[in-house]
Amino acid sequence: MELQANSYGKSAVRLTKVVRNGARHELFEIDAAVTLEGDFESAYRDGDNRKVIATDSIRNTVYVLAKENSFDSIEQLAVVIARHFVATYLPVRRAEVVLEQASWRRIEVDGKSHDHAFTCDGPQRRFARATFTRGDGETAIWGGVKGLLVLKTTASEWRDFVDDRYRTLKDTRDRIVATRIDAEWRYGSADANFGEASGSIDAAILSTFAMQHSLGVQQTLLAMGHAALEACGVIESIRLDLPNMHRIPFNLEPFGLKFENDIFVATDEPFGMISGTVSRTKEPRQ
Amino acid sequence: MELQANSYGKSAVRLTKVVRNGARHELFEIDAAVTLEGDFESAYRDGDNRKVIATDSIRNTVYVLAKENSFDSIEQLAVVIARHFVATYLPVRRAEVVLEQASWRRIEVDGKSHDHAFTCDGPQRRFARATFTRGDGETAIWGGVKGLLVLKTTASEWRDFVDDRYRTLKDTRDRIVATRIDAEWRYGSADANFGEASGSIDAAILSTFAMQHSLGVQQTLLAMGHAALEACGVIESIRLDLPNMHRIPFNLEPFGLKFENDIFVATDEPFGMISGTVSRTKEPRQ
Amino acid sequence: MELQANSYGKSAVRLTKVVRNGARHELFEIDAAVTLEGDFESAYRDGDNRKVIATDSIRNTVYVLAKENSFDSIEQLAVVIARHFVATYLPVRRAEVVLEQASWRRIEVDGKSHDHAFTCDGPQRRFARATFTRGDGETAIWGGVKGLLVLKTTASEWRDFVDDRYRTLKDTRDRIVATRIDAEWRYGSADANFGEASGSIDAAILSTFAMQHSLGVQQTLLAMGHAALEACGVIESIRLDLPNMHRIPFNLEPFGLKFENDIFVATDEPFGMISGTVSRTKEPRQ
Amino acid sequence: MELQANSYGKSAVRLTKVVRNGARHELFEIDAAVTLEGDFESAYRDGDNRKVIATDSIRNTVYVLAKENSFDSIEQLAVVIARHFVATYLPVRRAEVVLEQASWRRIEVDGKSHDHAFTCDGPQRRFARATFTRGDGETAIWGGVKGLLVLKTTASEWRDFVDDRYRTLKDTRDRIVATRIDAEWRYGSADANFGEASGSIDAAILSTFAMQHSLGVQQTLLAMGHAALEACGVIESIRLDLPNMHRIPFNLEPFGLKFENDIFVATDEPFGMISGTVSRTKEPRQ
Repeated sequence: MELQANSYGKSAVRLTKVVRNGARHELFEIDAAVTLEGDFESAYRDGDNRKVIATDSIRNTVYVLAKENSFDSIEQLAVVIARHFVATYLPVRRAEVVLEQASWRRIEVDGKSHDHAFTCDGPQRRFARATFTRGDGETAIWGGVKGLLVLKTTASEWRDFVDDRYRTLKDTRDRIVATRIDAEWRYGSADANFGEASGSIDAAILSTFAMQHSLGVQQTLLAMGHAALEACGVIESIRLDLPNMHRIPFNLEPFGLKFENDIFVATDEPFGMISGTVSRTKEPRQ
Repeated sequence: MELQANSYGKSAVRLTKVVRNGARHELFEIDAAVTLEGDFESAYRDGDNRKVIATDSIRNTVYVLAKENSFDSIEQLAVVIARHFVATYLPVRRAEVVLEQASWRRIEVDGKSHDHAFTCDGPQRRFARATFTRGDGETAIWGGVKGLLVLKTTASEWRDFVDDRYRTLKDTRDRIVATRIDAEWRYGSADANFGEASGSIDAAILSTFAMQHSLGVQQTLLAMGHAALEACGVIESIRLDLPNMHRIPFNLEPFGLKFENDIFVATDEPFGMISGTVSRTKEPRQ
Repeated sequence: MELQANSYGKSAVRLTKVVRNGARHELFEIDAAVTLEGDFESAYRDGDNRKVIATDSIRNTVYVLAKENSFDSIEQLAVVIARHFVATYLPVRRAEVVLEQASWRRIEVDGKSHDHAFTCDGPQRRFARATFTRGDGETAIWGGVKGLLVLKTTASEWRDFVDDRYRTLKDTRDRIVATRIDAEWRYGSADANFGEASGSIDAAILSTFAMQHSLGVQQTLLAMGHAALEACGVIESIRLDLPNMHRIPFNLEPFGLKFENDIFVATDEPFGMISGTVSRTKEPRQ
Repeated sequence: MELQANSYGKSAVRLTKVVRNGARHELFEIDAAVTLEGDFESAYRDGDNRKVIATDSIRNTVYVLAKENSFDSIEQLAVVIARHFVATYLPVRRAEVVLEQASWRRIEVDGKSHDHAFTCDGPQRRFARATFTRGDGETAIWGGVKGLLVLKTTASEWRDFVDDRYRTLKDTRDRIVATRIDAEWRYGSADANFGEASGSIDAAILSTFAMQHSLGVQQTLLAMGHAALEACGVIESIRLDLPNMHRIPFNLEPFGLKFENDIFVATDEPFGMISGTVSRTKEPRQ
């Protein structure tokens, strides 16, 4: 029998970093996951751990590197951490680092944003991923957003789909559409202005969602991808996952009332899931 | 043996209502729970359900009443539902309705808030509760907010607490404090402007959190309560639950580095829980 | 303005205790929450914390008391902790301790239960609560179980309930019923054999659920309460919360198929909630 | 710009099926997810949905196929569903079906397992996955278990790992190890006895966990994989994900007490994650 793929690492490393530029503080709250691949087979075969960096040491490293390096974006920190593990430990062939950042915004008091008090801006989280492979020399970097909730109350149709034995849903020219956007984009280089890129992509996605008259989530997905690639020149491709969080018309007929696109049942289960990757070129790098 | 207290109802009724004032749509997404008490002992004793309103019918009623009534706030809808059940069904002695509202805000496109596209404003949820008791004539109404996340990076001390065998924590004059505010306030009348009240109370709580130099969560709680009662004349009392979501200094010493109030471990467990009720008078109504 | 009720404490204190009786190990995994009430107003008013036991010290205390005391049941440990806080700190007027225990059972290897290896027995958790009030001298003790999932595929009816405008559900003489039982019972004394009591109550509840031909969840609730009080002489009363986790017949008609009580949609939302307290006497102690 | 990969489907389809063999009922509670790939680009490009099977129809199909087919295992149902979509719809090039099954066991009453009343056997869930690709002719089938919680209180060491600046953890020859096993295995054929296979693999994994003296989670993972492949001849390979759910010794020194491998802090965050795939041959099929 053979040990094929193997990897290990540490997940849910929860880091808070405060940068104190005088009275104005910057806040980073980050969940980190580090995964290492390499020459670790002796640990699996013989319980010989001499090449293994303990996951507790991996955790320590995340905090130490966050202390020793300044960064404006989680993309930068992800690159630092990924490179560190390959550069420091010969058995490590490849390191992958995934960081998620909580959304804090400054509290407004009397119309002014506060220096050191924050409230949550939403359930969505900024996302970064970096991989570094020994001998490769290049760091692959992704950014993204996870869990960006949006809903619109009109300007969405769903009709003309396959009509056969299994269909019970009717055509509609006016429905609610709601989704929880997961987007992940690949940067073309490690020198991008990651904060600016993320902001322009988010704006493009939200604006497309709001302004497009939608014939289906599939169509909206491609439009969002196009808009993101147009808005941000430093990304090569973008993957979108758009769960369709259905709002179902409540049947008012038994009560002698008329449905006027006004009363819906909100549901979590089941949900549709529409996915796609949009890129500038035919054969994008994975 | 005796059947003492009994009650029943329907929870997690998820209602979406869209109000279409021309092109500008209003959106309500509400989770409702209705609990009834009354003369239902025959169902428990004998399986005789003739006095029981099925929880499925309770669910239907929530949707129908949301259709038939216009409202600006979930407090208003809670009152309508509570009164309905007591007025309609003789066996119902008391009805309690709890509504929670998801936080949607309009998407901004080119600096203008969109007519019908929304994104999530945060994990916090607006909260309303109404109880109506037969013969009582009066509806008791509470409003609130649940899950309002806040964090500040300084201006928070924690010192001089009991020092004995069980204490290992040191005094600190500068720490991070983070909490997830649950607030519930009681209105003095059913005719209040609920939306205005909620807005002014939220602002008072957030402003107090940001501006107060805190000697402890207990002190902050009372200050928040005072500020809320001052900001909003139509509430009689306010209850606050403030979990202390600890950010723990990361021990940098083993790595030859100095902690400068900069690197913390964020934790969910365990958490402190500080609670209190602040009221205008010595003996508030429950 | 007045500070009415106030309390504070520590929640989600996660304790693992291993008792090593030779090769055969006993395992306790417990989540603890401690709430203190008393003379703490100066902390709220003035930020004067000199009477306050830090919640971090409360946490330490839970671990130390678990080390220093042997116990067979979480009820015993809850009593020890509650009494400790009132006995040790003069400002504490009342202490409430809630403990929940994870369900571990020994792994079977070749038909024998293993000495030190465990697997999870189910999502349900054993529950204990103790309160001790200064001057009172008496400790109130509750036991219970939380999240005990049960389902039966027949022998459950639901019919003859109120028929009016809001009803759309039809009578049924054969349905699936599923619930997630929360039960909390009050012990008559602090000297009960808590483990034996819990075992016999669980068995009575499960047996009643399985064997009763049910005319409704209300009827089942009272029968469970009766059975528990009969099976266990050391409890005074029992409260049951029985959410009705609906399995809804899937409409097979559009597909030319017949529903034969066989294909259902499982749902979490909305759910009915049936509650009740059964006691030996008319006026039970709260 | 190009639309690269695209796929869509329905998730969280919650199906309950009761098979009534006389008085003895069989219960299946299944969460289904179906993902389709194929010639759907016109929906993305032009909002032309004529080739698209609505996700609502996909949902209907799951219920209908569960009605029309008898099965003993979720592997069988997964195969039926995957083949259906490719066979029925020309645009579908590939279908993937993932099914998860809740763990119900019969309630014991007076030592006998009940005919139609069930309780939950644990948080773990049986898992099946099938993919069918047009032109391929072969169905790929995986089985598995998700969330199988295990803990052992001794016979686990962790020592001799890399010692450098980032290490603070000491060697230990006796620790608690706890994990939540996710295992996924690939069957060699579509005619396997899936129920028997799953049972023997589960037993091999649990027995290995209990009996092995472990030098690390990596070593335990490989031993589990070996044991599974030995116990069950019909699988080709097995992937295991073993999060290390740390129990951290509580520091009793400040309280004048001695740690005797008895008092631990249970934690969820952060956690180690050890993964690996074990196969019979050097180059297993993906």
